[in-house]
Amino acid sequence: MTLLIIATGGTIDKSYAPGAGTRELENNETQIPAILAQARVDGYAHTVLLAKDSLDITEPDRQRIAAFCADAAHDRLMITHGTDSMVATAAAIAAHPGNAAKTIVLTGASKPWCLKNSDADFNLGFAAGVAQFSAPGVWIAMNGQAHLHHDVAKNPTTGMFEARTKVDTE
Amino acid sequence: MTLLIIATGGTIDKSYAPGAGTRELENNETQIPAILAQARVDGYAHTVLLAKDSLDITEPDRQRIAAFCADAAHDRLMITHGTDSMVATAAAIAAHPGNAAKTIVLTGASKPWCLKNSDADFNLGFAAGVAQFSAPGVWIAMNGQAHLHHDVAKNPTTGMFEARTKVDTE
Amino acid sequence: MTLLIIATGGTIDKSYAPGAGTRELENNETQIPAILAQARVDGYAHTVLLAKDSLDITEPDRQRIAAFCADAAHDRLMITHGTDSMVATAAAIAAHPGNAAKTIVLTGASKPWCLKNSDADFNLGFAAGVAQFSAPGVWIAMNGQAHLHHDVAKNPTTGMFEARTKVDTE
Amino acid sequence: MTLLIIATGGTIDKSYAPGAGTRELENNETQIPAILAQARVDGYAHTVLLAKDSLDITEPDRQRIAAFCADAAHDRLMITHGTDSMVATAAAIAAHPGNAAKTIVLTGASKPWCLKNSDADFNLGFAAGVAQFSAPGVWIAMNGQAHLHHDVAKNPTTGMFEARTKVDTE
Repeated sequence: MTLLIIATGGTIDKSYAPGAGTRELENNETQIPAILAQARVDGYAHTVLLAKDSLDITEPDRQRIAAFCADAAHDRLMITHGTDSMVATAAAIAAHPGNAAKTIVLTGASKPWCLKNSDADFNLGFAAGVAQFSAPGVWIAMNGQAHLHHDVAKNPTTGMFEARTKVDTE
Repeated sequence: MTLLIIATGGTIDKSYAPGAGTRELENNETQIPAILAQARVDGYAHTVLLAKDSLDITEPDRQRIAAFCADAAHDRLMITHGTDSMVATAAAIAAHPGNAAKTIVLTGASKPWCLKNSDADFNLGFAAGVAQFSAPGVWIAMNGQAHLHHDVAKNPTTGMFEARTKVDTE
Repeated sequence: MTLLIIATGGTIDKSYAPGAGTRELENNETQIPAILAQARVDGYAHTVLLAKDSLDITEPDRQRIAAFCADAAHDRLMITHGTDSMVATAAAIAAHPGNAAKTIVLTGASKPWCLKNSDADFNLGFAAGVAQFSAPGVWIAMNGQAHLHHDVAKNPTTGMFEARTKVDTE
Repeated sequence: MTLLIIATGGTIDKSYAPGAGTRELENNETQIPAILAQARVDGYAHTVLLAKDSLDITEPDRQRIAAFCADAAHDRLMITHGTDSMVATAAAIAAHPGNAAKTIVLTGASKPWCLKNSDADFNLGFAAGVAQFSAPGVWIAMNGQAHLHHDVAKNPTTGMFEARTKVDTE
């Protein structure tokens, strides 16, 4: 099945460049092609739109992502994104009329793919399964659970995504 | 969403026990709980039914797997299984009347999870996405593609699963 | 052979704590026991003295490390340390009269041990070999080369340690 | 310092080739260049002489390894080798008069380098440290301990190398 993955940066794509200079994990080049190669996945399209920590994603960035989805020939898309503002970007995508009939799944990682114990591979696989079989809508798919974007929030204590009602009442 | 994972062995679960004695990868204990923990997945049920290379899975084993699925309280199940006879087990599961209304997804790995570059994490995540959103039926979900069991075969040259028509004609 | 490893932090020990809050690699708990366990090394003593990026190591810290080495019952010691000020700490250790007859080897990593492609395991093993067989003195052992501390400098461009004469003349 | 690594196969070099056909770990191509690259080691020479499980190494193989060491221009050499017959190969090397003045260090791994939790990197680093600083002789360097070849045996229960007196008396 045809599927398009749009990378925007976030923790999943952070990598570490040793040597002189910066010592921190940074959004340099995307790890998505390497994840797909390790998973022996063939036939997904993928592109890089942004390479930002999601705290740095601006409202114009969100409009750009939303428009890119609407303009894409694909009806089923995945977006890799930092978790902090993933829900806000999902809302912007859903607000674009050109995305009304599309299935768009946002995912990311709690730990960068370059780390030994990353959740990136599982999350990307999970999101790919959701993207291929779920109904149209904008979804957040993380750590084995998928929610429509308006029904989910990131728990500020655990960093995990939960159904909004659950987070609100705790 | 409630989901039950049934481990039967296969490449995904092979591990390496150094020391005196055997030097080969073997199906000792299941790796599924470790994969789920790394993926920070909470709330999936999982159990071990068999720990066999799929070339050693017998017809009675298949009947046992099929009956276990039918008897399970869950409507959505995943089965981790070796790839060589995955399609045969899927057919046995589908032939059991008790599974007619269930969504059952078989997955596994080309490289054991204990290896650095395994496809196990992605595959398990992908199968979990398929299991939660696909229609009832018995599915094979590997390397980013999902097929109903009667429409897929393992390519004997590449080891990849492909739509049956494509394999037959090549 | 008896050997004491003293952890002071640095890149080798940086780890990543997902969840709410900080997103960067930090010197939380030491990775040295995990590295030794993976290497199936038994019988080395190890302790944590500091947990700092080496840019944050102060002159009093250096005096403390030097005194700790001098006071230790061991004649052969290893120190894990960040690379940026490794040479300065080595000089402080060498200046302490109590260390004159000891073999003390500093090592670290260009990439944290928690990363998939870290040089930490090799470096720690290499330093252990140097510590057990080299003559008394304070050594820097990194990336397969060992130098007495007064004969080495970190190349500011590549981040690698090189014989001082070579760095100076390039 | 100039150092020559001679690969002969063994567990350290076993890798896994998915796809149709064999499913076991095999001695195909050597992993030594990849280990050195990950460790950012520059300047060691390395060559492949054999690619065998050490149980398959014959007496003529041992003579060939011994002669290769004697003929090499290097005075300090490392040999990667399977652990089961490592001591026998070390004895053959030591019996060759051309090796009398050389420092030759044999090492290997309990778990293949292709596994997530391999001891290969540490062992190769450790052996490199021993090879650069120990006195002439034929050494076994594994898991953080180095012994002259005539003073070591593999414990048949634990798979670890121990001083011969200790193994004999237990």
